[in-house]
Amino acid sequence: MINKLIENIKKTQAPVVVGLDPMLDYIPSHILDQTIKERGETLEAAGEAIWQYNKGIIDATYDLIPAVKPQIAMYEQFGIPGLEAFNKTADYCRQKGLVVIGDVKRSDIGSTSAAYANAHIGSVTVGNTKLSGFHEDFITVNPYLGSDGVKPFIDVCKEEKRGIFVLVKTSNPSSGEFQDQKVEGKPLYEIVGEKVAEWGADCMGDSYSYVGAVVGATYPEMGKVLRAIMPNTYILVPGYGAQGGSAKDLKPYFNKDGLGAIVNSSRGIICAYKQEKYAQFGAENYADASRQAVIDMREDIASIF
Amino acid sequence: MINKLIENIKKTQAPVVVGLDPMLDYIPSHILDQTIKERGETLEAAGEAIWQYNKGIIDATYDLIPAVKPQIAMYEQFGIPGLEAFNKTADYCRQKGLVVIGDVKRSDIGSTSAAYANAHIGSVTVGNTKLSGFHEDFITVNPYLGSDGVKPFIDVCKEEKRGIFVLVKTSNPSSGEFQDQKVEGKPLYEIVGEKVAEWGADCMGDSYSYVGAVVGATYPEMGKVLRAIMPNTYILVPGYGAQGGSAKDLKPYFNKDGLGAIVNSSRGIICAYKQEKYAQFGAENYADASRQAVIDMREDIASIF
Repeated sequence: MINKLIENIKKTQAPVVVGLDPMLDYIPSHILDQTIKERGETLEAAGEAIWQYNKGIIDATYDLIPAVKPQIAMYEQFGIPGLEAFNKTADYCRQKGLVVIGDVKRSDIGSTSAAYANAHIGSVTVGNTKLSGFHEDFITVNPYLGSDGVKPFIDVCKEEKRGIFVLVKTSNPSSGEFQDQKVEGKPLYEIVGEKVAEWGADCMGDSYSYVGAVVGATYPEMGKVLRAIMPNTYILVPGYGAQGGSAKDLKPYFNKDGLGAIVNSSRGIICAYKQEKYAQFGAENYADASRQAVIDMREDIASIF
Repeated sequence: MINKLIENIKKTQAPVVVGLDPMLDYIPSHILDQTIKERGETLEAAGEAIWQYNKGIIDATYDLIPAVKPQIAMYEQFGIPGLEAFNKTADYCRQKGLVVIGDVKRSDIGSTSAAYANAHIGSVTVGNTKLSGFHEDFITVNPYLGSDGVKPFIDVCKEEKRGIFVLVKTSNPSSGEFQDQKVEGKPLYEIVGEKVAEWGADCMGDSYSYVGAVVGATYPEMGKVLRAIMPNTYILVPGYGAQGGSAKDLKPYFNKDGLGAIVNSSRGIICAYKQEKYAQFGAENYADASRQAVIDMREDIASIF
């Protein structure tokens, strides 16, 4: 699946992933009012509105982008109907040829990690039938529990030809509280980065490992160090745009081959129509605003090469 | 909710939580074969079998125990029908007066952490209607992202009078890989423990905070240190039984008031009928075997006081 991701990035010339993280107040009223009219003020109405909203954005952008990253929390908060919208979104994106990165940040140990992996990037067997509960191509994984928390995910990746991105240095202001703590002079995120490189070494696609890393755009100096520590690791970079990361900060995350990183933008794309810059589109044409925002982001990132 | 947990513990005289972590191969064939017969080899058949299996165990043990801890990964792997079984299980347990600790180990930042908190221990608003997707009393939270990852969970706890248990030192063999790394001579788990105590200080129930901690039974020396660092923190202790922790290892986790810790057992209780010790019950009477295993666990733990 890392090969497919890279192929998609080369094809679109856009190391960009659109974060499908819908909040109800992002959804234009012509969609949400209608689903509430049809289904009442219910979780089902919310789920259906999220799905329709996503579909609009996917239809307007899929030819420009290699991948999407739905944040499952935004669906999970609407319970079962929310997760049905998550599944529909992931399935539709895959039909459109996009790589789906489930931002689930799951973590546990042993058979429990394996269950999460089976849930999202693998399968279960009922009787003699193999079935999948959710259907992502990659998922994000939290490393705090150590190797025996992460390895069951890697085992499923190997079997199913999928991938993971392990949190190394996150984009938020207080990520340093634990991640930057110095261990014999070296920050913890470097130790985690070394482990990610080690875990990824025997999980290689054609040129990069399918064990990737998450490193926030908001810490470019650390990005540079981590790039060197993990030369064959694809880096998923959140924090561009709304969180404050700019294009010039992104350069250190890429390798000399122009590959090695994929940059996420969520609000900046899916809620573009609410920005002054794209206000002329109007709420009715929110999806066209998202398309323009993708084009602008692609150009912005291209400017660093 | 921490007050209710303590009240339940005092009433049952059992600082015990039953981990409802069903694997399909734990489920006696008289249940699973029947649901497959009715629904085919589907996720729905798996979900229904899990629910029936859980209901049997709950009916047989609810009067002896204060709380249950369903591990959501075991349900999530069966997709939407699995999560429907999770919801039914949590709802049924709460009807029976049990405190439900959702072992979800969620983590993210800002509005995404808030969405997870709303999903499991809070609510969302659709139109003017407040709704809940999942319905736990406590959930477990991974701290790797730092304060701004954890605080949105605490905010929801305050509003909804629920609680969390933050991973501090997990029970697995490689938990030390990152958690034990020494930061100026002090292991990271102590730094996390200090933060948990700090976060919990203004979140007090009558005698303990509703910001709790997870500390594995397999590291009693560390449990002792963490007990001292977090005197008002309830400690959820996994790793007893199947993972190798024994009753004598548990003493340091408790305070002098006999409170302050609650010990989880999953496989040892829910799959008791497969142990030689309880084999006389037979698969048909798996729930009675679970009841006997709870009684034995309660006695085992009582022996340390």
